[in-house]
Order: sequence, then C-alpha cells, then structure tokens
Amino acid sequence: MFLNPRYRGMNSLGMFCVRTFAVVGCRTATRARSLCTSPGITVAQIDEEVAKLLELKAKIGGDEVKHQFVLKTAKGTRDYNPKQMAIREKVFNTIISCFKRHGAETIDTPVFELKETLTGKYGEDSKLIYDLKDQGGELLSLRYDLTVPFARYLAMNKITNIKRYHIAKVYRRDNPAMTRGRYREFYQCDFDIAGQYDAMIPDAECLKIVCEILSELDLGDFRIKVNDRRILDGMFAVCGVPDDKFRTICSTVDKLDKMPWEEVKKEMVNEKGLSEEAADQIGEYVSMQGGMDLAERLLQDPKMSQSKQACAGLSDIKLLFSYVQLFQVTDKVVFDLSLARGLDYYTGIIYEAVLTQAGVAPVCTEAQNGAPAEESVSVGSVAGGGRYDGLVGMFDPKGRKVPCVGVSIGIERVFSIMEQKAEASAEKVRTTEVQVMVASAQKNLMEEKLKLVSELWNAGIKAEVMYKKNPKLLSQLQHCEESGIPLVAILGEQELKDGVVKLRVVATRDEVDISRADLIAEIRRRTSEA
Amino acid sequence: MFLNPRYRGMNSLGMFCVRTFAVVGCRTATRARSLCTSPGITVAQIDEEVAKLLELKAKIGGDEVKHQFVLKTAKGTRDYNPKQMAIREKVFNTIISCFKRHGAETIDTPVFELKETLTGKYGEDSKLIYDLKDQGGELLSLRYDLTVPFARYLAMNKITNIKRYHIAKVYRRDNPAMTRGRYREFYQCDFDIAGQYDAMIPDAECLKIVCEILSELDLGDFRIKVNDRRILDGMFAVCGVPDDKFRTICSTVDKLDKMPWEEVKKEMVNEKGLSEEAADQIGEYVSMQGGMDLAERLLQDPKMSQSKQACAGLSDIKLLFSYVQLFQVTDKVVFDLSLARGLDYYTGIIYEAVLTQAGVAPVCTEAQNGAPAEESVSVGSVAGGGRYDGLVGMFDPKGRKVPCVGVSIGIERVFSIMEQKAEASAEKVRTTEVQVMVASAQKNLMEEKLKLVSELWNAGIKAEVMYKKNPKLLSQLQHCEESGIPLVAILGEQELKDGVVKLRVVATRDEVDISRADLIAEIRRRTSEA
Repeated sequence: MFLNPRYRGMNSLGMFCVRTFAVVGCRTATRARSLCTSPGITVAQIDEEVAKLLELKAKIGGDEVKHQFVLKTAKGTRDYNPKQMAIREKVFNTIISCFKRHGAETIDTPVFELKETLTGKYGEDSKLIYDLKDQGGELLSLRYDLTVPFARYLAMNKITNIKRYHIAKVYRRDNPAMTRGRYREFYQCDFDIAGQYDAMIPDAECLKIVCEILSELDLGDFRIKVNDRRILDGMFAVCGVPDDKFRTICSTVDKLDKMPWEEVKKEMVNEKGLSEEAADQIGEYVSMQGGMDLAERLLQDPKMSQSKQACAGLSDIKLLFSYVQLFQVTDKVVFDLSLARGLDYYTGIIYEAVLTQAGVAPVCTEAQNGAPAEESVSVGSVAGGGRYDGLVGMFDPKGRKVPCVGVSIGIERVFSIMEQKAEASAEKVRTTEVQVMVASAQKNLMEEKLKLVSELWNAGIKAEVMYKKNPKLLSQLQHCEESGIPLVAILGEQELKDGVVKLRVVATRDEVDISRADLIAEIRRRTSEA
Repeated sequence: MFLNPRYRGMNSLGMFCVRTFAVVGCRTATRARSLCTSPGITVAQIDEEVAKLLELKAKIGGDEVKHQFVLKTAKGTRDYNPKQMAIREKVFNTIISCFKRHGAETIDTPVFELKETLTGKYGEDSKLIYDLKDQGGELLSLRYDLTVPFARYLAMNKITNIKRYHIAKVYRRDNPAMTRGRYREFYQCDFDIAGQYDAMIPDAECLKIVCEILSELDLGDFRIKVNDRRILDGMFAVCGVPDDKFRTICSTVDKLDKMPWEEVKKEMVNEKGLSEEAADQIGEYVSMQGGMDLAERLLQDPKMSQSKQACAGLSDIKLLFSYVQLFQVTDKVVFDLSLARGLDYYTGIIYEAVLTQAGVAPVCTEAQNGAPAEESVSVGSVAGGGRYDGLVGMFDPKGRKVPCVGVSIGIERVFSIMEQKAEASAEKVRTTEVQVMVASAQKNLMEEKLKLVSELWNAGIKAEVMYKKNPKLLSQLQHCEESGIPLVAILGEQELKDGVVKLRVVATRDEVDISRADLIAEIRRRTSEA
C-alpha cells in the first residue's frame, strides 16, 4: 500500500481513502467503502481493503470471544477419513502400477515454488495462485499444477530425457458456484515423457496409459477426445480470427462441452467482437468428429489446407491414429475439433478423456463442513493432457527446449465415483488390514495377551489387542465384526495351561484349539486363503 | 498497518515513520530505517517494513532484468530425484507396513489450516509458522506438524477413539546455521492412539513400534530415552524453580544432548536467573539414567517423593517398563531424566529414539541448490513423541478431552542415512521396475515393437520400448544395463517369420528363441525367480 505507487497502481484518491480509514479505525468501514467506490480506485486496492477489513474482523472476534473459534478446515479443503483413504489408496495403487508398467520413474518437488517460477505460465488463471505471506526472504507461491514444477526441475537439472510420474496435491484459489463444486486443494496425478523422440510415439503411449487406467478403475465406458493446438490455431487463422484473439476465442471454444453452440457463438460475437462470418465458419469445423479419415479429409479441405500449421497438426493426428491402432484402442479415441484445453503452454496434440455413461458421473453433493464436493457435469472429464514443447525452454537460461508430452488423471473425480460406488455397494470398505484380534473372556490376562500380540507382530502378522485390561469378550468380538477382522485368538486360563490358543473365525463363529507352536503358521494359512 | 493500532501494537511514532516512507517512496529506505530505530518502535513494525522493502526490491529487480530469474527451489526445500524417491518409497513401505501391522488406519488433512487453529499450540516456535498471503477470505497457515491437525480433526468429527498414521509434509521457517542443516519442508511420519484406555498400554505400543521400525530399517543400534512431563515439572518444583520458569528451564534442560552440563547450568543461572542451588539440584537429577529400578528409587527419594505429579509420573514409568518387558524390548529403553522435549502440548510420558552408533549418523553435506542437507549431531535423534491429553480439548467447544499418545519417525534423517548407505554400497538403486525391453537390431520394425510392447502391457508385464524408430541395438542394450532391466525381447525379420522372439538375459548375454505364444509365461517365470 505504501510502496512505489507505480507498482501498486495507486492514485492519490486511493491513498486518501486508505489513510482516512486508518486514522478513524474500523468504525468507518462503511465510509471507507463508500470512498473506495469513487472513480479512479483500482480493483487491487479494493481487494486489499477488503482483506484488511476481514483480517480486522477476525482479530476483533478473536479478542472478544477467545475460545469461540470456528472448528473447520480451510474453505475448499477437506480431510480424508480412513474410509476415503482406503479408497484413495486403492485408486493410487492401480494408477501407480500402470505408470510403473510403462517404465516411469517418480520425482517430488516442494509444495511451494518461487513466485516468479509460476509467473506467466497460466494465462488468466494466474489469479488463482495462492501466494505465501512475505515474512522476509523469498516470495513464494503454492504450486498450481505439477507440470510447471516439472519443467523447472528439468531445466534446473539439465535433464533432457525422462519418463516420470508425480502424484501430489496442487492449489487453486478457485471460487466456483457450489453446484460446480471444486476443491482448492486437490491431487494431480501426472505422467510425462520428456525428450526429443520420433513424432507421436510418446503421445500415443500417453493415450494407451489413459485407456489402461480407466479400464482398470472400471469407471464405465469412456472416450478420449484428441485435437491439436496447431489445428485450432490454423482453423482460427483460416476462419479469419485476428491473431490477437486466438487465445480468447480458444477459451470460448473450450466451453462447448458445457454450453450449446448458439451460446458459444453469442459469446464470440457479442463479448469478444468476432465477426458473425468467422464464428459461423468456426462453428462448422468444431462440430466435426471422427478418426484418421477426418484428418485425411481436412488435409484436403480447401480452406484448412491453406494453413501450414493446421496441416502439420493433421499429419500428426494421422500418425497418432496409426499408433493408437497398434495399441488396439482405436475405439476409445476420437478426433474432435471442438476440444480446446485452456492452458497456455500446450503446443501440439491435446486430449481429454470423458466418461460416456451418465450414470457414473458424480452427482452434486455438499461434502462435510460445507466444502463443495466434486462436481456434476453432464459428461465427466477424468483425464487430460497434451504436448508442451516450449515450457522447459522458458526456464532454461539459454532457452534450450525439451519437448514434453504428458497426461494428468482427474483423480478427485475418480475418488468421488469410487466413493459413491462403495456407498452403493453392500461390501464394507475395510480401513485396516488386521488379520487377528488377541482377546480373552477372562479377567487379568492383559500380560498374556500383550505377550501373544507381540509374538504375532514379530512374525509379521497384523494383530490388535484392546487397550483395556478387562474388556468384555462380546465387545472384542463386536470390534472384529465392525472392522472386518477375520480371526480372533482367544486366551483363557485353560488354554494357557494346555499351551493352546482358541482360534475363532469371526464369519462362521467356528472355534478350534491350536497349539501355540502352530498358531502363526495356522493364521498365515487361513489369511492367505482369503 | 492501518488497522486498529491496539492490535498491531502501533504507536504514533511508528505511524509517522511508515507514512513518511510511503510518501517519499523507496529512495528513502535509509531514512525510514533510521527513523525506525528510534525508541518506541516495535519488532513487528520493523519486520513489516523489512518485508515491504524486500518485496519492493524483488519487484524492482523483476522489472529491470526480466528474463534473468534464478532457477532454484525455495530456500530450505529440495526436489527428490528418482533415486531418492526409490529410497523414500522403500523406507515408507517399511514404516507403513509396521503401522498397518499394528492395526492403524490412515487419514489426511489439508496442507494449510486456519491460522487460528495453529495459534497458541507451539509456544516460542510459533514464529516459524508459514502464513499464506491474505488474498481475501480466511487467514491460513501451512501446517507445522501433523499432531495439531490430528487433534483438530478429532474434535471436529467428535472422534474419541482412533489409531491412525499420517505421513505428510510439514513446514517450518527454520533458519539454522548451515552446519546444522534442516529443511523447511520435510516429512513427518506419525502414529497416534487416541482414546481413554488403561494406563501405559498404548504408550508401550508406541515404543514397540519404534523398536520394530528402527530394527527393520537396519540403521544400527539405538536407544529410546523415556521421561515424563510430570516428573520434569515435579523435579523443577522440588528443586525450587519458580512456577513461571518451568517452561524456560525445561527448554534449557532440552539442550543437554547438545551441550555439557556446565554450559546448561550457566544458561540457567546467568540467562534465566535461576539460583545456583536450584540449578545444582537439577544437575544431580538430570544425570540419572536407568530402568524400572531408577523409577522405584526416585519414588523413595525424600525430595522427589514430595511432588505428587512426579510420583504419578514415576508410577507410570514403572508400569511402562513392565509392558516394555512383555514386548521384549527392555534393552532398548532407558529412563533418562535429562530428556525434555520442547513442545508445549505434552502432558505425560515423552520419549526420543537416538542412534548410538556414531558411524551411521549423517554427516554434514550441502545438498543440491545450496539447501542445507540433514544435520550431523553427535547422536542422531530418529524418532520422538509422547502423551498429549489436553490438545483435543483445546479444540472442543466444551473442552472435552481425548487422551492421546503418539510417535513421530524422523524420516528425513532416516532418508539421509539410507541415501549414504546406497552411495556407499556397490549395488545400484533401480529407479524403475521394468522387466523387459522390447528391442530390435533392424530398421523399420517400430510397428512390430509397439504391437509386442502393447501385448506385454496388457498382460501386466512392465515393459519399455525406445521412442526412436530406428535405434541402435547397442544403445538399447546399454539402456538396459544402466537402468537394471533384466531382459530384452529382440525382434527381427527372421524372428517375425518364425513366430518367435529372441529373449536375451542382460546379465549373462544368453539369448534364446521363445515362441510368441510362450513369451509372456517365460518372462513371468524368469522375473519371478529374481
């Protein structure tokens, strides 16, 4: 607020407004607000004032009612409970297995980056980046995706070839309508191939990976839409879109999966000032879907073929389809000219996987503590990616490029679907893997139980004992039923005398005495059967 | 800066100082600084000014030399490369297996919490918390540990019983000397048992878990020091430490593992104003180490036995040792009166595991991009924890308590040790799990190779192919040797005609023709042998 006025975009009225407020304190909030709406005030100034008022409010609240603080997670974030974690673990295992099957290594990067590392990489979305408070030292921001940190990592370590996956949380100060419901902290699950290779081979592998993962997760039928940044740009050029409007028209085209063409056209013409003729020409192209044949047809299209870049893109689409055929996933891949992914850094092929069965798309729910749950859109996008050959070069001091192509699995949506499936299913989700509960029907056997459970742990058996000295047998058995523990090892005076343990199968209630010496082998035998 | 002056601890001079600076801009930085050193300026104000100057500096720099930005990770953070990740995965697997063996569930919480959730939980260390920039909305901070978010989770969800582990990164704006080297972003690996149970049973299980993990990680010999907050407090009371000096004297005692008693005493007397007599009495106690016998002796100690809380702590130590004996880890556990862990929230038993073999303690190294690596202290602390019965109650609106005990594995130090071991060992760390490379000696076989690799993927075999149409066989074989891929499936015109694949064992260079129909079974057989 009091720094170089040029930088902060401050004017004299803004200064006055803030100062007045400062002198008279918080009671003039209303007045300060009315002053701030005067002409000449910037949005940034207003934001800043609002932020200060809110902080003030929080503090005043804190002083007055010290212990009445709100028990919640930050807006747009959520905890994962053990059940959700069990589902998450299963999903991650499926995905990681696939990445490993394709020979990927993994890396990790810090949750925050230097602010300038993220600057200029996300276009309009940059406003959604979380900044850390300047507490002295470097200016930092939370990562917005895993792609930019990956590019920074490659440039920093001068790596020109790598196939890596990275699963981690990213942060976006998104403020969507509740019905669209998105998290501000969410997982990304990325697989990328960096290196100068023959065209479309790594790109085709990315599509193959998406097919494998979506099939294995058993989410229902899906399609992968494919397009190319160069085809989009070429199309805009031959349709008469001025160069400086490519990006903004592209982001309007991107809305075609959410709104009908008529509305998209309206936005192009009325809001973005495109001529009606250009919009109509675009409208013809973006309704086209097909396979290799469509790419061939467009290469012959009198208008499209005028654009060199469109032709380069179309040739690559043809090549891609030939590899997709070898991978036997042609039926899953569609060349769709309406696909226009938002991010600035894509340079070639782009793709997005959508679930085609309406039934499995997550419905709109309000998650715990008011945070919005995953969204319901008519067609659920569950993976996306593309080629970004210029991003690493933005970080390299000499601008050396490292071509990259990658895919990101929309894991949050997958979680939602899996959670709903689990809810709907009769089968209980186990949150632990305990194989046997050490129990007793009699009192004063805590020491014996601890000795036994310790033996089991030492043998690598997953075992539990209740932390009460004299729990009721019934409550011990109930715990087993609730948490799905299959076996109970019951100790009693008689069993101790006989050197045996009563092994009970929770499901059947069968009980059998097993000698202490054979117990571990018996438990292993029975739990490996299951 | 312009909010309620009471809150910000502002005075008129401070205001004047800041305003002057604002009006004349950054050229008066020197003048502003000289003004700020005038009497009556608070540290907070100075910090704020410094922060603004630094931000200004960063911005000016940014404008002048736009493309010369520093390619680095944020101070105190690091990337993990694939080799480090492979080691990390191994360590995590060992630890998670142990937690699961003991029947733990897992949860996850957001990386940031409401600022007020963390307020007042960490004593002096609160200054190390990372705050997020106020961009409107809630005031947020990065989590400082996993314990406070766990307590918040329990209170918020009204959970009174849970055994959970949580492995995630935490954040501390630590600024240690390079030689001590700590990360600002690092993993914590926590196991906690919440619930009202019979005394010392969950506490003993925590110690058992530490023993299992440290043994399985094979880090060399170790000891777990045990003490009790109540014994410390009782000891301070009977030695004549004034009530209001318990915490500060406790944090001085905590330094005993890093400095000799004489220096610790000097700090108590000279810096903290303790009487020499009191310090000497403390000195006698904190030199004591032992087992159950020491606890018994101290229960008879004429002075110590005057403190009710000390006696409660000593009785619990005795009980703990009886369970530790049942778990057969008595030789690893030492009752040590000098152990005084810093965190405010502990209420009962506390413990810390240290490696006793000097050889394995990590040496001081400078990690990549100037970030300090893990520290070398004479004795390496690798795990710690204790009982915190009051923390959940701080979050519950009605103050309902949920007793908790837990342990945190010092995973970063474990990583360092494992990395050093890997460096020292002849064995190569594999960063992928690829079982077979699909290769060819001849040109123009890309399509056939892609078909084969796709078959292998579909069969669940981890396989790779080079992304070049016509790579040299030698470079394909070299890649296998470098990344430890055991098998190569070689395709050639002749093999295709004969319906076979030449399977080569990289280590022995043996080659054998396998029919296409048997290939998958043969690869499985050979890779399961290894």
